Amino acid sequence: MAKNIKPRAQDYNQWYIDVIKAAQLADYSPVKGCMVIRPEGYAIWEAIQRDLDRRFKETGHVNAYFPLLIPQSFLAKEAQHVEGFAMECAVVTHSRLEKDPNKPGVLKPASPLEEPLVIRPTSETMIGHMYAQWVQSYRDLPILINQWCNVMRWEMRTRLFLRTAEFLWQEGHTAHETPEEAQEETLRMLDVYAAFAEEVLAIPVVKGEKTESEKFPGADTTYCIEALMQDGKALQAGTSHNLGQNFSKAFDIKYLGRDQKQQHVWTTSWGVSTRLIGAMIMAHSDDEGLVVPPKVAPVVTAIVPIFKSPEEAAKVREFIEKILVALVGAEEVAAVAKRAKAEGIASYFFDKASDQRIVVDWRDSRPGDKQYHWEQRGVPFRMEVGPRDVDGGAFVFKQRLDRSKAMVQVGEVSAAWLRGKLDEMHKAMFDKAAKFRDENIRRAETYAQMKEIFETKGGFVRAWFKPSREAEAKIKDETKATVRCIPFDQPGGTGKCIFTGEETETEVLFAVAY
Amino acid sequence: MAKNIKPRAQDYNQWYIDVIKAAQLADYSPVKGCMVIRPEGYAIWEAIQRDLDRRFKETGHVNAYFPLLIPQSFLAKEAQHVEGFAMECAVVTHSRLEKDPNKPGVLKPASPLEEPLVIRPTSETMIGHMYAQWVQSYRDLPILINQWCNVMRWEMRTRLFLRTAEFLWQEGHTAHETPEEAQEETLRMLDVYAAFAEEVLAIPVVKGEKTESEKFPGADTTYCIEALMQDGKALQAGTSHNLGQNFSKAFDIKYLGRDQKQQHVWTTSWGVSTRLIGAMIMAHSDDEGLVVPPKVAPVVTAIVPIFKSPEEAAKVREFIEKILVALVGAEEVAAVAKRAKAEGIASYFFDKASDQRIVVDWRDSRPGDKQYHWEQRGVPFRMEVGPRDVDGGAFVFKQRLDRSKAMVQVGEVSAAWLRGKLDEMHKAMFDKAAKFRDENIRRAETYAQMKEIFETKGGFVRAWFKPSREAEAKIKDETKATVRCIPFDQPGGTGKCIFTGEETETEVLFAVAY
Repeated sequence: MAKNIKPRAQDYNQWYIDVIKAAQLADYSPVKGCMVIRPEGYAIWEAIQRDLDRRFKETGHVNAYFPLLIPQSFLAKEAQHVEGFAMECAVVTHSRLEKDPNKPGVLKPASPLEEPLVIRPTSETMIGHMYAQWVQSYRDLPILINQWCNVMRWEMRTRLFLRTAEFLWQEGHTAHETPEEAQEETLRMLDVYAAFAEEVLAIPVVKGEKTESEKFPGADTTYCIEALMQDGKALQAGTSHNLGQNFSKAFDIKYLGRDQKQQHVWTTSWGVSTRLIGAMIMAHSDDEGLVVPPKVAPVVTAIVPIFKSPEEAAKVREFIEKILVALVGAEEVAAVAKRAKAEGIASYFFDKASDQRIVVDWRDSRPGDKQYHWEQRGVPFRMEVGPRDVDGGAFVFKQRLDRSKAMVQVGEVSAAWLRGKLDEMHKAMFDKAAKFRDENIRRAETYAQMKEIFETKGGFVRAWFKPSREAEAKIKDETKATVRCIPFDQPGGTGKCIFTGEETETEVLFAVAY
Repeated sequence: MAKNIKPRAQDYNQWYIDVIKAAQLADYSPVKGCMVIRPEGYAIWEAIQRDLDRRFKETGHVNAYFPLLIPQSFLAKEAQHVEGFAMECAVVTHSRLEKDPNKPGVLKPASPLEEPLVIRPTSETMIGHMYAQWVQSYRDLPILINQWCNVMRWEMRTRLFLRTAEFLWQEGHTAHETPEEAQEETLRMLDVYAAFAEEVLAIPVVKGEKTESEKFPGADTTYCIEALMQDGKALQAGTSHNLGQNFSKAFDIKYLGRDQKQQHVWTTSWGVSTRLIGAMIMAHSDDEGLVVPPKVAPVVTAIVPIFKSPEEAAKVREFIEKILVALVGAEEVAAVAKRAKAEGIASYFFDKASDQRIVVDWRDSRPGDKQYHWEQRGVPFRMEVGPRDVDGGAFVFKQRLDRSKAMVQVGEVSAAWLRGKLDEMHKAMFDKAAKFRDENIRRAETYAQMKEIFETKGGFVRAWFKPSREAEAKIKDETKATVRCIPFDQPGGTGKCIFTGEETETEVLFAVAY
């Protein structure tokens, strides 16, 4: 058992932090609530970005960049938005620092700004302002823009990746001619997120609609994908908002229609963030550390040589080269040899387009430490090659997910073989998470039943419910649970609301959430 | 002549803005000094990022992300750095906005912070602080990290891409065991920048060292690549700094050496920014608008169909499909057909890895307007296909750079043919810019000669000079010119300083700079 990682059963929160530290994914920074995403963590974010960006472009979107700072007056323009976003944020009030004459070595703010600026908590307002200038006629529509950037929301209780003051995300912002097109776009992007979560992160999700009290401040409707973590808490992994004409009216985004009349556009916004890395960790990792889904693994296989003498090292090296040639081709092996340093980790592209690599760990440390190193980083597979293995023409193949070991003959190895293994692992991870999720969706017919489930088991509770701010607030007070979503798959008909007993047409999913 | 673009000879500054507006690369934003990078401009930045990122990774670097906000006390730690960077910056002083009871609809700052935070102008200080925690022994070195992010420096006089309060950039930050390794790294990255500028942006550059008065605040030595713009002004396109032990001492980044002694690491930093897009525009564009170097062109060829009847449209469409199949393959043509909307611009991957596309402009507007549209966006090539061309089995091939036209037989067309044309265009752009640059490097033997050159011709002036803060300040006052760099290719021997007459070993390049 890993000494530097607290088991989940003992302290789930500590386990989460320990897994992140052991894999060197992130660190707290000296600025309260802000994190440093270390190279191992950022490489996963890059893999997420690459895949999502491709999906956004395939659905017709382009990227752009809007200013970090937003005038306070913009936030004040949309009535619901101001309540939800304007309050807890970083406010820029000065444009200079100057030396404090009274305190040597201390700098103090100078040159106050006329109007305070806020570091964007989200960019509907700034982008709305710009769209108002760009859109003249229906010919300028739709606008399908996405932005990859940093945002800030001043959070008091922070948790690495899941809730930090500053985080990285993408925010899509689109403008359409008709409400139907806006709705189609909102659902299209929800589907993109759901497909991404399942096909890439191996996280099964439930698609649904938010209740009034949980929706985005300024949206007509918010849709979401909800995932279940191993401790039975839910995590919102992505949201897509139909903003109706709320922002187009607040920012006066008008166009001359086909009917020659001026009218306001219909807008949407949708986003996912570095929170996905938190979801990925909590959905898949185990007491030994991180387990990375193969599609976003920066390293797909680590090869650990074992030898005691220079002769053995040479023998092992030659054999590893055979494996490498089979996996990445002779050309790549030669290219790495050319740019390689004498010592350290040699890194070979397995899939250049997605920056996935195979590494050979030639560092001067004990094979056991190396195994441990790659295991805690969640690398899908490890190959162990010692002199005896070479004699048998085989190596030890270790799978991170089930921690199984097997001997593999070098003749079996090819890029297609490894890709097949990676696909199998993806499927196994998804199936495992889906089984856990399905086992943890429970039906409650009464509020007492639901309370008992949250007290003893956690997970999702599915129940008839008539959404209302008051009822949801009371339920949250008493159980900590919230309505995660009104799932798309409704049974039809009606039932009795679990809380009020009123007849209702909606079934919802409750859970305690991150 | 383009009606919406002022010719360079009449008003170079206006021409620059007009080119950007006509190509829809960027816009000013409602926040003073901040710009919006529009999709056409951002696509060029993405191409720049893709290529540079590959070069960084090939030289062993990894990406990470550090916080946006930096405590004022960090900036105050390094003596030179504080003078250079702490002063003009965005200062965050509050963590909340609240409704102003006296002014309805207005939000005012609340919850003052204990210590003011600054939006990063550059991240040496924050990264230095983190490296101090990550580095224990020589085994942890080198650290080779790069960050892609936004930064802010409060600029009074701004210019789209070239000088804005907020801009996007990458900043590399490395830590090494020895001064030799740090120096090697500093020069390696300068070479990466120079190769990128020439091989990708087709901008010839001069490599050199900055004088004391022009170097980065906190660096031992700053190296740079300098380019010449069409108006005879120089532009610093990238810098690489050897920071010695200045930051490692200020932030106490220590390691246990091979000699079992604690010592400070040696650090470097290096960066390029969205300024490169400004350089690209000013180096290559003409009075008709933008000219994009082929390696970063999001669209490499625009195909404009010409027809007057549905029959002609069908005939032209069939012919264009032949061209497309020859350029991108039948599979890609089918894939686009599958996801295509009925109208608008169809977009085919020419090179998926670098996101370069071929577009066919089926929009409902006049062929002349379409030609104009793609010409002003600087697309390297356009193909015009009308019914008569189809009869001849050929199309009109227009080159953006020299505005030439030629008939090309469809049988000649292939991906390799187009790639060849793009390579030719790259070479022609580079050669044209290099010729201009070489014609505008002039020697001055006396200060009077140099003054006359700056008054009449501009460009670079090469002269013997003994760098000193005083002399450089006076020369800048009198001529607006600064020492751009001490070029690496020195003649050897000594000469008389153009300003003081003293014997000196250094030749420098002077220019008026952006």
